Amino acid sequence: MNAAELYNSYQTKMQKIADVKYAAAVLEWDQETYMPVNGSDKRGCQIATLNEIAHSFLTEEQLGSLLLELNSATGLSSAEKRNAELSLQDYQRNKKLAPEFVRSMSENIHMAYHAWVKARKANEGSIFQQPLQKLIDLKKQQADLLGYEGHPYNALMSEYDKGLNTNIVDTVFTNLQPALSKLLNFIQQRQQVNDSFLYQLYNKDSQWKYGLALLKNIGFDFESGRQDISIHPFTTNFSNADVRITTRIDENSFSNMTWSCIHEGGHALYEQGLPAEYYGLPLGEYCSLSIHESQSRIWENNIGRSLSFWEHNFPLLKTFFPEQLGNINTSQFFKAINKVQPSFIRTEADELTYHFHVMIRYEIEKLLIDGTLTAKDVSSYWNELYKKYLGVIVPDDRHGYLQDIHWSHGSFGYFATYSTGSLYAAQLYAAINNEHIDIERQVAQGNTITIFNWLRANIHSKGRFYTSEELCKSATGEYLDAKYFTNYATKKYQDIYSS
Amino acid sequence: MNAAELYNSYQTKMQKIADVKYAAAVLEWDQETYMPVNGSDKRGCQIATLNEIAHSFLTEEQLGSLLLELNSATGLSSAEKRNAELSLQDYQRNKKLAPEFVRSMSENIHMAYHAWVKARKANEGSIFQQPLQKLIDLKKQQADLLGYEGHPYNALMSEYDKGLNTNIVDTVFTNLQPALSKLLNFIQQRQQVNDSFLYQLYNKDSQWKYGLALLKNIGFDFESGRQDISIHPFTTNFSNADVRITTRIDENSFSNMTWSCIHEGGHALYEQGLPAEYYGLPLGEYCSLSIHESQSRIWENNIGRSLSFWEHNFPLLKTFFPEQLGNINTSQFFKAINKVQPSFIRTEADELTYHFHVMIRYEIEKLLIDGTLTAKDVSSYWNELYKKYLGVIVPDDRHGYLQDIHWSHGSFGYFATYSTGSLYAAQLYAAINNEHIDIERQVAQGNTITIFNWLRANIHSKGRFYTSEELCKSATGEYLDAKYFTNYATKKYQDIYSS
Repeated sequence: MNAAELYNSYQTKMQKIADVKYAAAVLEWDQETYMPVNGSDKRGCQIATLNEIAHSFLTEEQLGSLLLELNSATGLSSAEKRNAELSLQDYQRNKKLAPEFVRSMSENIHMAYHAWVKARKANEGSIFQQPLQKLIDLKKQQADLLGYEGHPYNALMSEYDKGLNTNIVDTVFTNLQPALSKLLNFIQQRQQVNDSFLYQLYNKDSQWKYGLALLKNIGFDFESGRQDISIHPFTTNFSNADVRITTRIDENSFSNMTWSCIHEGGHALYEQGLPAEYYGLPLGEYCSLSIHESQSRIWENNIGRSLSFWEHNFPLLKTFFPEQLGNINTSQFFKAINKVQPSFIRTEADELTYHFHVMIRYEIEKLLIDGTLTAKDVSSYWNELYKKYLGVIVPDDRHGYLQDIHWSHGSFGYFATYSTGSLYAAQLYAAINNEHIDIERQVAQGNTITIFNWLRANIHSKGRFYTSEELCKSATGEYLDAKYFTNYATKKYQDIYSS
Repeated sequence: MNAAELYNSYQTKMQKIADVKYAAAVLEWDQETYMPVNGSDKRGCQIATLNEIAHSFLTEEQLGSLLLELNSATGLSSAEKRNAELSLQDYQRNKKLAPEFVRSMSENIHMAYHAWVKARKANEGSIFQQPLQKLIDLKKQQADLLGYEGHPYNALMSEYDKGLNTNIVDTVFTNLQPALSKLLNFIQQRQQVNDSFLYQLYNKDSQWKYGLALLKNIGFDFESGRQDISIHPFTTNFSNADVRITTRIDENSFSNMTWSCIHEGGHALYEQGLPAEYYGLPLGEYCSLSIHESQSRIWENNIGRSLSFWEHNFPLLKTFFPEQLGNINTSQFFKAINKVQPSFIRTEADELTYHFHVMIRYEIEKLLIDGTLTAKDVSSYWNELYKKYLGVIVPDDRHGYLQDIHWSHGSFGYFATYSTGSLYAAQLYAAINNEHIDIERQVAQGNTITIFNWLRANIHSKGRFYTSEELCKSATGEYLDAKYFTNYATKKYQDIYSS
């Protein structure tokens, strides 16, 4: 076969695998949105079968030989070359984990998840210790099987963001931590802002309609996606022309749905903007979880919690909730939605203290993976770090180390991408401001198309061509630097807490 | 391997295949209900890939050997034996059609479907002639490949109802046709009933809520299923614990949604009642399309259009639509929903004239398959038969032979199951009445549980153990006989049109 034929054959195989993986995603989406309760048992089997099929296609020897041949073929375009190269890397990564190892991991995750649910219910951290330690041991093994330079934790972080490592994260956290602590300290000495009006009765229907209007506003394409309700908001996609997001509505809070909409909307804009011609191929996929998170955070925080954004949007919002917000002005609203307050729960944290929640998890995971810490020490060390960074006394494990689902799912190395995502977002937004000096004015006029187009051109359309670091460099001219977030946060919170 | 091991291995394989087929069904359901418009392209690929995978699993040589070995093993229970036997029949049937033939059929269906859409749009029957003839030729070939006794059309009808043949259908139609013509003639000489009040503004929300109440009433389990909106109502399922039905709502008609709900609800009760322990195996599947249709029709017509049913339900219905129905009494309502009037369109036909629509299609299909008729003669022969049986002059092909999607999908041999379904329904309902002489009184009191339980015990729980004919015999003591429908219809329409 010549290069074109090889590439064709490769593309066909990859697209079929994508078909199966996306089919599994449809089943998962349905499971979280519309599936009747009794459908759950068989649905589990159906998803598992599709994943097994996809995995068996992905690890077929035939695919391996094809990829090797393709990678040594001449005459491919640079995009084709990059696809071939990334697919070979993926293949080799998949082959490093023997089916027995994958099965053992999956069985232990199953057990750990159920132990975690039980532990949470009983508010009894010890129930989760043993299965957690078992997963940690398996994760260490996984790191060894995958290989790494430096810290074994690098192998695990690379699963979510190829190339992310402890050097990068340590550096940004070392810069971030003192700056944020100082800022937090400053805030805690000022008068707290009033956000009580965010917690009144906000009619569900109106919230739902307002959420759709917001999504439309930021450029979500409803002909290539939709929003539904689920218990936990998420984004999924079955092609770049079918991107599904979900939200939840709390009738007694305005914030819950609104920022879930913008956050998932940001993820969705990324997926909708991935290049359609690379369906099933690496260049049609997102760069990394860090970059994915940067796309949700830039809309949720840098734009969605800015004064400019609400200068345009607050009057519209008031037409949805005249009774609740009639007496509130834009400045009061802006302050309320940016209230900073240390707390126990990561998912409820504000934009600033959020990073401490991540640092704590990052530090613990690193120590668990290099063996300095074991599962039985996690609870007390967790509580110690919460006191140290956030000054709060964790009352129990439910408000402590049992709060997140991640470990019970075997997701070690994931948390850091929430912070790097937020830092990338600040850096990207600074670059946009730099290129378009009137961007705040545009936003204040309800015009976010310049931002949308910039992200499409510099992030979305690049797919997986670059690593996060390379993409950041190509888009902003620099590698990741925490100072953009620090500057952004300092300015914002000084504005809010000085007046 | 011993018999138990063989059976286990067979069961595992079949369940995995079912997982893939049901996954495809989820994707199809989503496509018809929630999928955004741009998702369509890739969704087509995803469904095709899943179907290809299922087909390749179903025709693997390894499965064939396993089935042969299993069928000669001793020590299986009668249910296990029957599963093994039916799966082997299915396997052998699948192997009779070479992949090239299947592909050619699928490509020609694709072309025929698009020609049909174009022909309908242009109201120009000739556009559809050539692709239709091509499909007919392929269908003849399929009949030869599958093999048959008697008429080649038997091979095609057997695809929808194994064992259904021209002897059976000719016999029932020969008995049915003169009786129905006589009845129609009688009706046409009487004063027509007034159904104008069914066509007013019926609020969509209220219709939706009323539909759900109706479904609940007849025993639809909302923990094992749900209803949604789609352009064409349908029933699908992903296990017997996840059965989805859809409906459509016309704000200017009460009938559309109501009987679509009960009709699809009847299909759904069947699926929900199939034995869960045989997931993926023949005994967990429905008997035939005729029997499936009998389950929808018995609820839609024999029960749902009976005076007893509305004696209980009409007062409730009035609470939903007091303005529209406040001045109507149960007897007027009963007559209106049973109005008989010859028409051009099968899907809009009443319970009586519906059979003529089917007879016409059946007669034409038989002649097309044995070569007596060719595609170019269909339009004029169609119109001739409509004049003969229903006394109506078909104005154009859109109201004539272009109205149904079936032929463009390659579905030849399907139509007869609509009539046999209706005949089975009447026969089953007669049997229920025979066993429970107070059934009408029960229904009039809003109690349909006896009917529900009877159908569960005699039809649903039997899965595919019997053929339609055998199942009918086992449930009613007799093979299919059109007289039950004739008696039922004669009594009903004499009641309605005599007063």
